[in-house]
Amino acid sequence: MNIDKLFKNVAKNGVVCLGLDTSPAYIPEEFKKNYGTPGKAVFAFNKKLIDATHDVVACYKVQIAYYEALGLDGLAAYAETLKYIKSVGQLVIADIKRGDIKETAEMYAKAHFSGDFEADFVTLNPYMGMDTLEPFEPYFAKGKGCFALMRTSNTGSFDIQYLTTDIGKKVYEIVGEKLQKLGKKYMGECGYSSVGAVMGATNTDEIKKLREMLATTFLLIPGFGAQGGSAGDAALFLKDGNGGVVNSSRAILTAYKKHPDGSERFEHYAREETVRMRDAIGGCL
Amino acid sequence: MNIDKLFKNVAKNGVVCLGLDTSPAYIPEEFKKNYGTPGKAVFAFNKKLIDATHDVVACYKVQIAYYEALGLDGLAAYAETLKYIKSVGQLVIADIKRGDIKETAEMYAKAHFSGDFEADFVTLNPYMGMDTLEPFEPYFAKGKGCFALMRTSNTGSFDIQYLTTDIGKKVYEIVGEKLQKLGKKYMGECGYSSVGAVMGATNTDEIKKLREMLATTFLLIPGFGAQGGSAGDAALFLKDGNGGVVNSSRAILTAYKKHPDGSERFEHYAREETVRMRDAIGGCL
Repeated sequence: MNIDKLFKNVAKNGVVCLGLDTSPAYIPEEFKKNYGTPGKAVFAFNKKLIDATHDVVACYKVQIAYYEALGLDGLAAYAETLKYIKSVGQLVIADIKRGDIKETAEMYAKAHFSGDFEADFVTLNPYMGMDTLEPFEPYFAKGKGCFALMRTSNTGSFDIQYLTTDIGKKVYEIVGEKLQKLGKKYMGECGYSSVGAVMGATNTDEIKKLREMLATTFLLIPGFGAQGGSAGDAALFLKDGNGGVVNSSRAILTAYKKHPDGSERFEHYAREETVRMRDAIGGCL
Repeated sequence: MNIDKLFKNVAKNGVVCLGLDTSPAYIPEEFKKNYGTPGKAVFAFNKKLIDATHDVVACYKVQIAYYEALGLDGLAAYAETLKYIKSVGQLVIADIKRGDIKETAEMYAKAHFSGDFEADFVTLNPYMGMDTLEPFEPYFAKGKGCFALMRTSNTGSFDIQYLTTDIGKKVYEIVGEKLQKLGKKYMGECGYSSVGAVMGATNTDEIKKLREMLATTFLLIPGFGAQGGSAGDAALFLKDGNGGVVNSSRAILTAYKKHPDGSERFEHYAREETVRMRDAIGGCL
């Protein structure tokens, strides 16, 4: 099961999930100009980053929006990136945040767990209801996994996720309980299930409570680096240094910009930043 | 503004939104075998349907999941379908239900309001928070529009959307109020705004209350036909026969299956079913 492989990767390589949210604007001009289309440049950039980091990350996350924004050319780069990650023996989370009625969700499951866009995990938006996850379950049974949105840390998260219901629970707590319960059907050998949760940073007391509630739920923790999350916040979500991965995208992809020779050695500085982040979180455990 | 054009289309052609959720499984075998790939067959099928129906529908809705499921080949068919709808002077809603943090939402807005996948309206999932809609606003100001998920009628809608909050309001009501308010910034001349809502069928008393709350919000009403919604339910959401469109997909796409000569004349039967649906709803006004 992919969740077991992810658990082993964290133990071996550390907790960093490298987000390949590759905007052409992040790519050095000197490098970009060698490629005929933005999509081709994005894939070439990703390839160098994957070569330089695959032994120091737990997995990759590919945010499909950045590729959709480049049209068909971008989606070809998306497909190539997924294939290349697989070829080096690494895992990839397709950050697609899809959520729709049964018939449509069946199509999304087919789209992102087979064919051109096959990934190991997908992110899902369960807010239309838990039945929107059902069509993914046959794939969970075969080893694929998901990270469903539970609570995020954007300012708008207070609009709906943080509302208190008439039974005293927050909306995101109700979602979390349902995810934890669903996951029990798809447990890996590592003690975590194939149904993970996306969990934004929060305050210390809440983290303890949430980690307890989500005892067997693996976490995808966004918001590190450019989005402002700290190593200490992220470390609190982990159990013995595992049970979650911490995503960073822009801070790693553009780390080269701080160095005079960055444009020629961007992959080197991406690796350096990844290791720095991994060790910073490790130091807080 | 697209919302004004949609209003005029409803007045002229009726309220049907034809959903081109075209699974290859819906296409007659005799027709499909003339095309080299599933995507090419899907586009050819869509093209015939668009030719046969563009004067009896308010707009088209294209559910991207069905195209993503065919990989790059499917997304090429998706792009071609959007372009063809535009070429016949019709409007298209890209049913993408995206929703993500600001930087990502900017990419989705660019992806679906420009370039290969340019549509007139998109569907959005606002459950991560209203800030996920902000990056779409510059496009609303230029005439594009959206339909944001407010309440749906799938069984899972009770999991989150229908929860009651501690101030006595349902989660979907809180979402609806925010959408109605946001729309006031982007009003068309027709009395409706560029910020529409996806609204599943419900009971009569509730419909009156919701329609009042959403006074200037145009509605996308799914669930007609194959999903079980009735003409009477749909009609209740309209004001003087306008202010919303009613989607039907499978029931129209596969109407030909009921006829011995259906495979040769599928577009004819699609038109017949569209007109039948339009008149059934019209008869309930």
